[in-house]
Amino acid sequence: MNNFRRIPVGIVGASGYGGVQLVRLLMDHPQIELVYLGGESSAGKTFSDLYPHIGSILNLNIEAVDTEVIASRCEVVFLSLPNGLACDIAPKLLEKGCKILDLSADYRFTDLTTYTTWYGIQRSDRLTAQKAVYGLPELYRDKIAESSLVGCPGCYPTASLLALAPLLKQGLVVPETAIIDAKSGTSGGGRQGKINLLLAEADNSLAAYNIACHRHTPEIEQICSDLARQEVTVQFTPHLIPMVRGILATVYANLRDPGLVRDDLRTIYTAFYRNSTWVKICDSGVYPQTKWSCGSNTCYIGIEVDRRTSRVIVTSAIDNLIKGQAGQAIQCMNIMMGWDETVGLPKLGFYP
Amino acid sequence: MNNFRRIPVGIVGASGYGGVQLVRLLMDHPQIELVYLGGESSAGKTFSDLYPHIGSILNLNIEAVDTEVIASRCEVVFLSLPNGLACDIAPKLLEKGCKILDLSADYRFTDLTTYTTWYGIQRSDRLTAQKAVYGLPELYRDKIAESSLVGCPGCYPTASLLALAPLLKQGLVVPETAIIDAKSGTSGGGRQGKINLLLAEADNSLAAYNIACHRHTPEIEQICSDLARQEVTVQFTPHLIPMVRGILATVYANLRDPGLVRDDLRTIYTAFYRNSTWVKICDSGVYPQTKWSCGSNTCYIGIEVDRRTSRVIVTSAIDNLIKGQAGQAIQCMNIMMGWDETVGLPKLGFYP
Amino acid sequence: MNNFRRIPVGIVGASGYGGVQLVRLLMDHPQIELVYLGGESSAGKTFSDLYPHIGSILNLNIEAVDTEVIASRCEVVFLSLPNGLACDIAPKLLEKGCKILDLSADYRFTDLTTYTTWYGIQRSDRLTAQKAVYGLPELYRDKIAESSLVGCPGCYPTASLLALAPLLKQGLVVPETAIIDAKSGTSGGGRQGKINLLLAEADNSLAAYNIACHRHTPEIEQICSDLARQEVTVQFTPHLIPMVRGILATVYANLRDPGLVRDDLRTIYTAFYRNSTWVKICDSGVYPQTKWSCGSNTCYIGIEVDRRTSRVIVTSAIDNLIKGQAGQAIQCMNIMMGWDETVGLPKLGFYP
Amino acid sequence: MNNFRRIPVGIVGASGYGGVQLVRLLMDHPQIELVYLGGESSAGKTFSDLYPHIGSILNLNIEAVDTEVIASRCEVVFLSLPNGLACDIAPKLLEKGCKILDLSADYRFTDLTTYTTWYGIQRSDRLTAQKAVYGLPELYRDKIAESSLVGCPGCYPTASLLALAPLLKQGLVVPETAIIDAKSGTSGGGRQGKINLLLAEADNSLAAYNIACHRHTPEIEQICSDLARQEVTVQFTPHLIPMVRGILATVYANLRDPGLVRDDLRTIYTAFYRNSTWVKICDSGVYPQTKWSCGSNTCYIGIEVDRRTSRVIVTSAIDNLIKGQAGQAIQCMNIMMGWDETVGLPKLGFYP
Repeated sequence: MNNFRRIPVGIVGASGYGGVQLVRLLMDHPQIELVYLGGESSAGKTFSDLYPHIGSILNLNIEAVDTEVIASRCEVVFLSLPNGLACDIAPKLLEKGCKILDLSADYRFTDLTTYTTWYGIQRSDRLTAQKAVYGLPELYRDKIAESSLVGCPGCYPTASLLALAPLLKQGLVVPETAIIDAKSGTSGGGRQGKINLLLAEADNSLAAYNIACHRHTPEIEQICSDLARQEVTVQFTPHLIPMVRGILATVYANLRDPGLVRDDLRTIYTAFYRNSTWVKICDSGVYPQTKWSCGSNTCYIGIEVDRRTSRVIVTSAIDNLIKGQAGQAIQCMNIMMGWDETVGLPKLGFYP
Repeated sequence: MNNFRRIPVGIVGASGYGGVQLVRLLMDHPQIELVYLGGESSAGKTFSDLYPHIGSILNLNIEAVDTEVIASRCEVVFLSLPNGLACDIAPKLLEKGCKILDLSADYRFTDLTTYTTWYGIQRSDRLTAQKAVYGLPELYRDKIAESSLVGCPGCYPTASLLALAPLLKQGLVVPETAIIDAKSGTSGGGRQGKINLLLAEADNSLAAYNIACHRHTPEIEQICSDLARQEVTVQFTPHLIPMVRGILATVYANLRDPGLVRDDLRTIYTAFYRNSTWVKICDSGVYPQTKWSCGSNTCYIGIEVDRRTSRVIVTSAIDNLIKGQAGQAIQCMNIMMGWDETVGLPKLGFYP
Repeated sequence: MNNFRRIPVGIVGASGYGGVQLVRLLMDHPQIELVYLGGESSAGKTFSDLYPHIGSILNLNIEAVDTEVIASRCEVVFLSLPNGLACDIAPKLLEKGCKILDLSADYRFTDLTTYTTWYGIQRSDRLTAQKAVYGLPELYRDKIAESSLVGCPGCYPTASLLALAPLLKQGLVVPETAIIDAKSGTSGGGRQGKINLLLAEADNSLAAYNIACHRHTPEIEQICSDLARQEVTVQFTPHLIPMVRGILATVYANLRDPGLVRDDLRTIYTAFYRNSTWVKICDSGVYPQTKWSCGSNTCYIGIEVDRRTSRVIVTSAIDNLIKGQAGQAIQCMNIMMGWDETVGLPKLGFYP
Repeated sequence: MNNFRRIPVGIVGASGYGGVQLVRLLMDHPQIELVYLGGESSAGKTFSDLYPHIGSILNLNIEAVDTEVIASRCEVVFLSLPNGLACDIAPKLLEKGCKILDLSADYRFTDLTTYTTWYGIQRSDRLTAQKAVYGLPELYRDKIAESSLVGCPGCYPTASLLALAPLLKQGLVVPETAIIDAKSGTSGGGRQGKINLLLAEADNSLAAYNIACHRHTPEIEQICSDLARQEVTVQFTPHLIPMVRGILATVYANLRDPGLVRDDLRTIYTAFYRNSTWVKICDSGVYPQTKWSCGSNTCYIGIEVDRRTSRVIVTSAIDNLIKGQAGQAIQCMNIMMGWDETVGLPKLGFYP
């Protein structure tokens, strides 16, 4: 243990819900030391100003974003910023030798035209973007291990893709029949004073939003197409659920072989995820609750086949802020650094 | 006004959530007088024992169920009992001239074999069952007006069918592509001490249940088949949502004509429901929240078309205990009695 | 019925939660017709812009506030505005013969110095203010009947005063020992995008706020002093509860006569409120839930005596938006107009 | 590190909410190994039967309770059983050399007559009970360090006593004026199918219960009396809050010296808890939210003085299942074993 050295790590954009989860989890990560917090709007503030309960425990102020300073202090940097900001900062940090985990959409797309079409943001870091790897370790573990720039998936794509991947990879379903009916807690909307996210409006209520136009659609399609080795278009419908955190994706698709039964698929999924600690396939007839995963990095998957309709129905549950955001980024860091990918991440949720 | 006489009405099974909504709404209904409350498990109890806040306002005890007594006192009887009990009581009450609104599944099915297959209940009231009309006024208003026995729809079928009806009736979609992803508050599970309905378990959580086997499936399919004039099989997936009341049905189906756009469908829906006060079609790009309908008998419907997939996505929101249960039964009573179907029913929910 | 004429009524400030409850309840009030909606920030908007579900049912736009127009169209005007605005409008409307129900703090205080001290607002309508009556009908029914200007109580004072009144009026407790620990749903914070009212922040959480300095304190003290015929100082602590609506006040006070038992006090309360339909005294050993009153104008009161400490503990539950706001204002209007004070108000909550 | 040995630990009563938190926290505790789970009603079951999400991660079955077996395998035993069961088991385990942490009320009382009066349970382990230490480390750290049998405090007493202790210990308030208005999430009611704990009943509602007769009253009074060195009677009123976990205690007491101001008291509290990592005193004018502490072992305390009434108002927030139950027991174990008392316990809650 003599030569043990904690790796210095920084977070840019520490004040949102994703940032706060990063702070909480990284504070207790045994291989790293959290040495830098940066922010634009929150620069100069202490954590006490933003989250009084954290301020009394964490002694780090939020500094203005200066890539020179960051690179001089940090070996690994998490970027948790609004879309369109990471693509300015990441190239400079990369050049100075930092490893980067970006939690925004900026480095998720191999085709920047798609990014620009859906996000409305022009950018000029094409060469950098080409180096980025999509940070879903259960699908791209080897590439992540060799990368210095990881574009971490969105929360909905994480739940959706973990549910769909074995089906598409092995050609078990007709891709264009894939429908993802997704449900998210309101923390996915961020820490901003929007009327529709008020408790008085959102509690004891439920609605779909951004039907047929949510930005996570092309991200899901890109990875589905890669898995299926053909262009895939999916139906994706997000819903706002009266709860703080958690995502459930209910995925429908038509089976190519109507003779497949539930346990055939459970066997296939179990094999597909045999090296993936963070994915758990439920017992026959058991469907996951989002509460199971809240607070942990685990994704629970339940599988059903309807013999009457020859459809498979898969439900997957994650914590949108952990496996859907901060936890997954840390899992990616663990892989990039050659550590066990479970280090510093909670296995069990805080149930109930 | 001299000859005005309030119609005497009774409720059998007044102690559940549906029963309590019936009590609350019927207490203020201007055309009727609530004269009888009956129950099996709750017979002999006062409402104070069951719901202290109602006991201090309503002066009616819960009596044992005696069809002679009921028929001697009531012209209209609401049956709000567990499945399999109404089919014993209804024939006797009908014979004595009562009009009956059954809130259970007993009189929803034209094919009793389907009922027995899905509910596991044998019964011998075939002749009575043939007289029953399915109590969804927006589809069967005329038949309800002439009937003495109405089998009121389940909560999920109400939301699902109001969303699907115009599409199927007018042959706009491929029936076998219909998928209903439905979400319900926990009051739909009734007032019983089940672990999974505890606040500590159900709050801040979300899960699918009874995938591919929920009993409301054949009920939905029966009416869909009637509308489409062909046998229709649907995919129906219910979810438990961390809220007290409300149902949202998100319905997917493939359009036969991919050229149809959102506003074409909005026009078709508006025409289809032009005589239906209780159905409101949302403006373009607006999708309903369940909170809008909570406390009212109104069903709000939002319509979207995805040009990329040629699918229509319809979301419909109701209060599961009002339009999905007690309110709809009262609406049916109004029609059976020849009254305006809006009498005694709240138009606006209690938002927020 | 030939000569029956509905009284024309207007609402200024119809877009907040209190305004929306006024709209909902007044739409179905049998004695009035809602003819005018006014607002400052929302002028020119339709209700569809603000609350899509209401827009499809109510055909009234929100007009700019013009006292000439209002007075020409309305006999009764509800003012539901931020503090400090009613005192500009009310004198003009009064002069033109309108009856006014103000839901803000502007006309609650007999001593305008207290108002200015706690609210920081200077005003010059001293003469008008002297005519105002405090709109808690259970205490000031006769004065309200004769008044043209009623300052409707705050939500916390309503729950607190109904719990305390019999004790203070009859000298049963030591006034300076009165402690009010009050709990409110977040709709009391209004429809504004504040971070602390977000579902993600407020749900599954609980905190006190404005300890020892909440503006409802002097309002409670003014009425307590009137009841006790001596100057009374109370301890008032509000808490934000993770629910949409409802207030519970838990009131503590030392009994002067330690021999009094629970049922003595229940008898005294029952007598005190014998003419008050909207107050219900719970049975022995029963304490009210806020859910009982939600949606109704009823205040439920539960009474306990602790023989070990010689204290009385009273809990009172109301719907903060109905008995605590819109319902109480309508109750006052009914009294001012000489109607039965229960007209147009729901007796039973929408439980569950 | 060569000689490092993890201490074998068992849990009797692992299936309730407290048990599940013990399992979750002990699984990751670096100094111990969880080797035994026992239960009466759940014996023979796997965790998959009880909590499917844990079963897939933890490989321990629940065994029947056999003190021989337990003592042969465990050095430390947590008892998380209904009241009245630990007093049968603990003497046998103690005799065989186990260290015991009891989470029930059985070993909280120095005076067993009080226990029997309030809990209605007769018992014969007087000698064993005399050895028990009250497991609130912030007050009895030294005694806990030397004990083999710790009676861990109730959830309400933990929050109440941490708020009151500095005031009583230093004679700053008049003890008989102490009023504790406490609020708890519904997980405090346990994992049992009670109607009043259903989401449909408890959500969006709020009520007091067990006024003037809750069993935590004598426990609070025993410790208050010890602190004040005089017999203390307190007013304790619990409330059920529509949230899963968390307790807020709002404590009122009359100051002996009316000249004391808020910051005087903050200084006194800070000094009193200077060695207590798990207690955080909020900044001036800041009052804690329960959400801050949820998931952590931290108790946040906010302090206010009302100059008008000469009262101090203290609010304290804990997670009822962590600092109020499982976390505190682990903290006690750490102290008994001579470890740092923070080992294995989360400092930051899982906010939001």
